[in-house]
Amino acid sequence: MNTIGKILTLTTFGESHGPAMGGVLDGMPAGVEIDLDELQRFVDRRRTGSYVGASTRDEKDRVEVLSGIWQGKTLGTPIGFIVRNADARSADYDEIARCYRPNHADFTWEAKYGIRDPRGGGRASARETVARVVAGGIAVQALNRLGITVTARIDANSCASAAVLEQVVAQGDTLGGVIECVVSGVPAGLGEPLFGKLHARLAAAMMSIPSIHGFEYGDGFDMASKRGSEVMDLFEKRDDGTIGTVTNHSGGIQGGISNGEDIVMRIAFKPVPTLMREVSTVDRDGNPVTLPPRGRHDACVVPRALPIVEAMAALVILDNYLIKKTNVL
Amino acid sequence: MNTIGKILTLTTFGESHGPAMGGVLDGMPAGVEIDLDELQRFVDRRRTGSYVGASTRDEKDRVEVLSGIWQGKTLGTPIGFIVRNADARSADYDEIARCYRPNHADFTWEAKYGIRDPRGGGRASARETVARVVAGGIAVQALNRLGITVTARIDANSCASAAVLEQVVAQGDTLGGVIECVVSGVPAGLGEPLFGKLHARLAAAMMSIPSIHGFEYGDGFDMASKRGSEVMDLFEKRDDGTIGTVTNHSGGIQGGISNGEDIVMRIAFKPVPTLMREVSTVDRDGNPVTLPPRGRHDACVVPRALPIVEAMAALVILDNYLIKKTNVL
Amino acid sequence: MNTIGKILTLTTFGESHGPAMGGVLDGMPAGVEIDLDELQRFVDRRRTGSYVGASTRDEKDRVEVLSGIWQGKTLGTPIGFIVRNADARSADYDEIARCYRPNHADFTWEAKYGIRDPRGGGRASARETVARVVAGGIAVQALNRLGITVTARIDANSCASAAVLEQVVAQGDTLGGVIECVVSGVPAGLGEPLFGKLHARLAAAMMSIPSIHGFEYGDGFDMASKRGSEVMDLFEKRDDGTIGTVTNHSGGIQGGISNGEDIVMRIAFKPVPTLMREVSTVDRDGNPVTLPPRGRHDACVVPRALPIVEAMAALVILDNYLIKKTNVL
Amino acid sequence: MNTIGKILTLTTFGESHGPAMGGVLDGMPAGVEIDLDELQRFVDRRRTGSYVGASTRDEKDRVEVLSGIWQGKTLGTPIGFIVRNADARSADYDEIARCYRPNHADFTWEAKYGIRDPRGGGRASARETVARVVAGGIAVQALNRLGITVTARIDANSCASAAVLEQVVAQGDTLGGVIECVVSGVPAGLGEPLFGKLHARLAAAMMSIPSIHGFEYGDGFDMASKRGSEVMDLFEKRDDGTIGTVTNHSGGIQGGISNGEDIVMRIAFKPVPTLMREVSTVDRDGNPVTLPPRGRHDACVVPRALPIVEAMAALVILDNYLIKKTNVL
Repeated sequence: MNTIGKILTLTTFGESHGPAMGGVLDGMPAGVEIDLDELQRFVDRRRTGSYVGASTRDEKDRVEVLSGIWQGKTLGTPIGFIVRNADARSADYDEIARCYRPNHADFTWEAKYGIRDPRGGGRASARETVARVVAGGIAVQALNRLGITVTARIDANSCASAAVLEQVVAQGDTLGGVIECVVSGVPAGLGEPLFGKLHARLAAAMMSIPSIHGFEYGDGFDMASKRGSEVMDLFEKRDDGTIGTVTNHSGGIQGGISNGEDIVMRIAFKPVPTLMREVSTVDRDGNPVTLPPRGRHDACVVPRALPIVEAMAALVILDNYLIKKTNVL
Repeated sequence: MNTIGKILTLTTFGESHGPAMGGVLDGMPAGVEIDLDELQRFVDRRRTGSYVGASTRDEKDRVEVLSGIWQGKTLGTPIGFIVRNADARSADYDEIARCYRPNHADFTWEAKYGIRDPRGGGRASARETVARVVAGGIAVQALNRLGITVTARIDANSCASAAVLEQVVAQGDTLGGVIECVVSGVPAGLGEPLFGKLHARLAAAMMSIPSIHGFEYGDGFDMASKRGSEVMDLFEKRDDGTIGTVTNHSGGIQGGISNGEDIVMRIAFKPVPTLMREVSTVDRDGNPVTLPPRGRHDACVVPRALPIVEAMAALVILDNYLIKKTNVL
Repeated sequence: MNTIGKILTLTTFGESHGPAMGGVLDGMPAGVEIDLDELQRFVDRRRTGSYVGASTRDEKDRVEVLSGIWQGKTLGTPIGFIVRNADARSADYDEIARCYRPNHADFTWEAKYGIRDPRGGGRASARETVARVVAGGIAVQALNRLGITVTARIDANSCASAAVLEQVVAQGDTLGGVIECVVSGVPAGLGEPLFGKLHARLAAAMMSIPSIHGFEYGDGFDMASKRGSEVMDLFEKRDDGTIGTVTNHSGGIQGGISNGEDIVMRIAFKPVPTLMREVSTVDRDGNPVTLPPRGRHDACVVPRALPIVEAMAALVILDNYLIKKTNVL
Repeated sequence: MNTIGKILTLTTFGESHGPAMGGVLDGMPAGVEIDLDELQRFVDRRRTGSYVGASTRDEKDRVEVLSGIWQGKTLGTPIGFIVRNADARSADYDEIARCYRPNHADFTWEAKYGIRDPRGGGRASARETVARVVAGGIAVQALNRLGITVTARIDANSCASAAVLEQVVAQGDTLGGVIECVVSGVPAGLGEPLFGKLHARLAAAMMSIPSIHGFEYGDGFDMASKRGSEVMDLFEKRDDGTIGTVTNHSGGIQGGISNGEDIVMRIAFKPVPTLMREVSTVDRDGNPVTLPPRGRHDACVVPRALPIVEAMAALVILDNYLIKKTNVL
């Protein structure tokens, strides 16, 4: 279950403090031009250092593409890639191997596997998202060739304010936030009517990003308290002869299939669970333990998450673009 | 893409006014006792007639199990079933074959397939959910044998008030609403850490129900505006020696894996798109058309959706229960 | 695991003596003309009575299409169908519920599921193939629209001789045989280079038919004792400007991908395991038992298997035809 | 489609002359002891140099495990690994970029993707099998912990004779051969009754190895010319109280499910298509071309293929071992 997608599939691997993170992007059409420098810049957007309260870990995430792209074009073969974990310090994490950090995956991971890699959270670390961004960055380039763009931005009400963030950091506390993502230029007809509804696929992809607690598209939860007559996206014939809707309460998706309008979705992140304060918890035997304040973590992951959100959206949209090709003989 | 699930899979079929709806539930373990009368009662909960503003169509959804259950027990073989469409009146729908109803899937369906069954919305009708409820009802019984219960209820702020609903119906308008679903008794350790996170699977399953616009679990979107210290689910050792959390902001899932607390999620339904008023729209050529008020539709689907939500939750939880068995040799 | 295929998927269900066999063919492109009478005739080819030594059970396999086809065309939605089991006589099979018939699946089925439907072999009966033939018959029609034909015939060395068969039947014995299947008109470029090699997909599909013990394509096992220079399919430019091969030792597939020549494969069936003689075996406790001669079974399934083989070939080829569409952006 | 398996999945990537081959083995249970030195020795068995007529390319295939194994045990997370391509000489292959080598995948690959990596056959090279052997070697160790062993050997009638091979090499020709593979210690009850029959899964896995043209199990193609009474595997109660069969014509599988006897299968390899002679072919435009004799290729791949066959068998058996766990609640 480290694979996502139907025709375009991404399989990822890697523990936070192992030798490397990596992935395989399979099902990419052949002959698509991919600019590896542009890809590196996309991945760099996920790196630390670009805002107040960011982790001081310097990740230097250099993408190594191992297959599937040759002479600047995709071959149709799986695109294997790795990103080395340059800055692994196993010793930092030894003491927490026996304790369950609150709001982390320590306890649940042990319940599932009976074993856990305590080094930096192992595979439960948000470090795994680097592989998503590499693959998603390739999908973004393919979509751009089709005139489709993907843009994530921090929602107005979120942790965008440097002043608030500084105050929170000073208190050793953390923040969450909301990201809005818009996909423009998507042709009508992408998606599937039943279990593979376009928004169901997008929801699953977004909810698979660490720390997400909510997903909505179009008017989202507000829809629930409105009347049918208030959210009706009436059709109109446009000057270019195409049919579109006057409003976009539906967020570009109706019946699980894109209608040609902007696809608009919002994703809610919980606050970072690692505080820079002492935390009370228990060890494996249930004995009370106090964990010291920890360093090297972001106070708010939302800014770094923008390319992750774009990556996941791009993977889903491109997959559905390919599925659409199979709807006629 | 009419299949959902990994080990326990449900594949459904059927158009609203075709001969029958149906499905195949594959991967059910062998030897599980299934009470078919109890199953019929579960499916009956989805039927019309139980509240103000409900559709007057009498569905009489009799479940016909065709395979996979013998002498009251599952055989391990696929459970095929159908529910006949007793009340199909094709003539009702002829005039809308050329028009695109706002907030329906008419336009997007044609964009995808180039062809559309106009009879009652064809497969885009919420009629398809009857197959989900049959399969989910079987999963619910299996979970009950394991001490796991699934309960959906209309959220306090939703269309529960008969007074409000009567007023809306009188105006020919419609309502949406929010359903909260709680799964109790889930052992810690169900779910997958990456793309198959338990909440990602639940989100995809719920978002695949017609008319859903949002999903959240635990504190959901509220998480985004809280500080880390406010939503910390601290661990404690309980009297029975097990480890649990004092609060449940996380909604029973941490790192994509159940932690043994109640799994709590909320799902937002948009208002029913078929108003009992005239509606302005366009036909295939973009010409303006006025559709007459239509009958035989619910003013609010939320009450009927309760067993659908429970069904989808049960399918996901049981699937993950089976996946968990493969985590050790 | 009652599903086969990637984009075009078939899921089947049904026990031999339950109410019905059935299936769901999902992923069929929209707008394909399907002649249901032609489909019924295709399914009828699988019925009994057409040769010496055939079972005397009259199956009358009437296909009921429940969804996905409307006004003679596919809708793009899943095609659900059932075939009622008209002639179920449960009483015939009660005595064998405790015994393991040699070369049947009684013993292995119980080892897997701990429970077994003894009525006519339950789902282990070759009766299940009727659902394959229905779905495959639809795929055959779609392929025909593309100029692709699928033809299975009994191999020269097999049980084709009525004289031999009569003698075998007189002795209460049974026969196996080999079927050769040729797919003509397949364009070059179908298949996948790695695990989804076209011949690997065909092998899996054929080997999933009951009673199969071997699969080969092109020169098959003979290849193993030849030298490279003897089996070289040299390329030539043909009069119409296309490139083809002078010989076809490769059976139309090179590197797992079709090369435009006829796809040729051979499938080996074991003899029918149910003899019309007494058989010595054991019951669940290992005690020796003698089973009486049984009736109502074919002495050789190969003639009835021709449409089954064609059906499985058609499903695989059409699936790969659709996959091919996704290889370019 | 570079992924194989259901619960235990292997995804591979890599072109022959790209930076590295690699793969991701996902779904491995947690806590399984893996000896990396033993794994390297298993992979070394695939290397060149161990017999007459072998390629002179020195591959030095050092396995780099990047994730999923920690302190000698599996973590339950995906096992990512790479094997660097140390000896890539791109220049060797430039001239053949425009020509189609007979019995290679050059022509079909271009028909499928419209683009082809000519360096050493790219991903169509048998070099890809190194990733299978790494993953399969891990599966072999897991099976061994369960008392299951996998052994492949060259069939008696194949290219085992050094004298014959020397003669063939002297003539610039090549050979194929047959490998027999036996899996012992498999408990009864592994496999699936319908499309996922154990022998169907094994056939697909074996046929996905480059150069395979045939697969059979048990008495295989010989079954087709025998009578039912000749191949009956009668049951008996053994001294230890278990039930087994007196003979094993069925090759350890009945109805697609293992019966506890040895699983026995035979796989036919075609002769190596690259001769050490001049070869006549055509270029992209259909013009006749003569390719010079080529070096650095094996005259017979069968000896090197032994660990590949074992690897594929191990992956299928272990996957089915895990599937079996989900057959009861």
